[in-house]
Amino acid sequence: MKITINTYPFPDEDLRQLELDFKNVDFSFVSSKKDLLNEIEDSDAIITFYLKKSQMESASKLKWIQAISAGVDHFPLDYIKSRNINLTTGRGIHKIHMTEYALSMMILGARRLDKMMLDKNKRNWNHDIPQNEIFGKKLGIIGLGSIGMEIAKKASILGMEVYGVKSLEDEVPGIEKIYTLKDLKQLTSKCDYIINLLPHTDETDKVIDEEIFNSMKKESCMINMGRGGTVNEDHLHTALSEKKFRLYISDVFEEEPLPEESKLWDLENIVITPHICGPSTNYMKKAYPIIKENISRYLNNKELMNRYSFTKGY
Amino acid sequence: MKITINTYPFPDEDLRQLELDFKNVDFSFVSSKKDLLNEIEDSDAIITFYLKKSQMESASKLKWIQAISAGVDHFPLDYIKSRNINLTTGRGIHKIHMTEYALSMMILGARRLDKMMLDKNKRNWNHDIPQNEIFGKKLGIIGLGSIGMEIAKKASILGMEVYGVKSLEDEVPGIEKIYTLKDLKQLTSKCDYIINLLPHTDETDKVIDEEIFNSMKKESCMINMGRGGTVNEDHLHTALSEKKFRLYISDVFEEEPLPEESKLWDLENIVITPHICGPSTNYMKKAYPIIKENISRYLNNKELMNRYSFTKGY
Repeated sequence: MKITINTYPFPDEDLRQLELDFKNVDFSFVSSKKDLLNEIEDSDAIITFYLKKSQMESASKLKWIQAISAGVDHFPLDYIKSRNINLTTGRGIHKIHMTEYALSMMILGARRLDKMMLDKNKRNWNHDIPQNEIFGKKLGIIGLGSIGMEIAKKASILGMEVYGVKSLEDEVPGIEKIYTLKDLKQLTSKCDYIINLLPHTDETDKVIDEEIFNSMKKESCMINMGRGGTVNEDHLHTALSEKKFRLYISDVFEEEPLPEESKLWDLENIVITPHICGPSTNYMKKAYPIIKENISRYLNNKELMNRYSFTKGY
Repeated sequence: MKITINTYPFPDEDLRQLELDFKNVDFSFVSSKKDLLNEIEDSDAIITFYLKKSQMESASKLKWIQAISAGVDHFPLDYIKSRNINLTTGRGIHKIHMTEYALSMMILGARRLDKMMLDKNKRNWNHDIPQNEIFGKKLGIIGLGSIGMEIAKKASILGMEVYGVKSLEDEVPGIEKIYTLKDLKQLTSKCDYIINLLPHTDETDKVIDEEIFNSMKKESCMINMGRGGTVNEDHLHTALSEKKFRLYISDVFEEEPLPEESKLWDLENIVITPHICGPSTNYMKKAYPIIKENISRYLNNKELMNRYSFTKGY
């Protein structure tokens, strides 16, 4: 049993523990494309952030790919399916640090701390920015996967009233009411903070559009931590210019890096971070328990966790 | 029974409810110095953010002052004591919104979100800032009053290990270990995040000095939400210039506004906010339950809550 572990772009020290945990497995640690190609050839499994079709073609023994990322859109899904290879994901790795981003950004938005960062650079002591808070406010979470549920849990501990959107309109403990994507406006018209965690699929493409922006409360704040393609950015620019709602905070954009010529940069009521929600200096430490569990299941012929469904698309 | 209510600088709508709650009390709402002087003359009590000796001298019936602020250093304490007037404070009003500031600033510090706010204004998509998190980190809270305890509670829910400094080294549930101010270095040398909530007294004057900065871990982050006078700012400038620790985040300074010529503005490893921790757009809503409870106790000759102790000094 040989498993290739490609840890690029993170250092591999945290995963080296696997060698101690599974003494009968032949692990091969690689961190370059060349080494990957050499080692995958006779591997039964590979643990990696990416894998191209050309890199898989020589790997005739390959039976399982463990993605270290949560999303797997960048893997050659049709080819993996056609070869009947198991694909599992890093779902759950991000929930702690993405929840921290969500909480800090809601409070930043309530207090407009972003303005103070600019004031600091101008030696400007401006005490007059209204200071609001998230306690007691209504939060709407669009997409209740492992990250959305963790945000819901912690936001409600901080005193927020939480609403959600998921594919099935059932009950979830701690969440006041669940809507489906087709009733999105019912959530956006009600909430003070709206967090978008949607993946980008045919169904979600540009689903956040002028109709949604027009439904929002004037004082509300929207945070996009999902995918840029779920938002109509032309409509967004218009809505922000016309102050349809108070503030848009986004880590993701239709085109990334956000092009230098984008008009979004100039708006006063937008906060931009450069797709840094997902990365974490502790990323591999968090990936470790998922990988360990799945190797153990694989060796014991048990059902793998975090299996990607080719029919559902996640 | 007449109570003057001076609501300046906040709007009074939230406190108007008192007129409905206590129909037998003669309330007088004022929001200017002139009206204050007129109305206090025959008042039994006053509820206010400030009161000068000159404003009190004509108030011969005055038996109780309810400060709406948490600190009362700006009241004429000796004079109030000499006239045997009860003084109660707004202790507890701030704990929710100051805790939100603390949480958001720790996460901002872990991710250096402040840098991204500047990058946004330069249309600069810089994806390379290391992204850390507060989960699993050690937090030291210097000053465990109502705000410190609330921060401790919520930070531990977010996965932090919490240590504290208070005047008596006893046990507090949810806090790993309590130190006293004279053992401060034991806390500062251990923690990844250190929050200073100290009031400014003879005992705490410039207590955060080069010895403390030298004790800190290179990767640590200190947040001052207490008083500027508790920090030796010359030592602070040296410590930050020499990168003795990673980041200083401060809402308070020895002189406020922080003078334009201060060298602190120029440092890359400092985040400055203009003393905005305390204010909140919901301030009066939060003051309301304390004021209501105390009026009720006053009318029923019961011990008032939040009584200022002239011997303890808080």
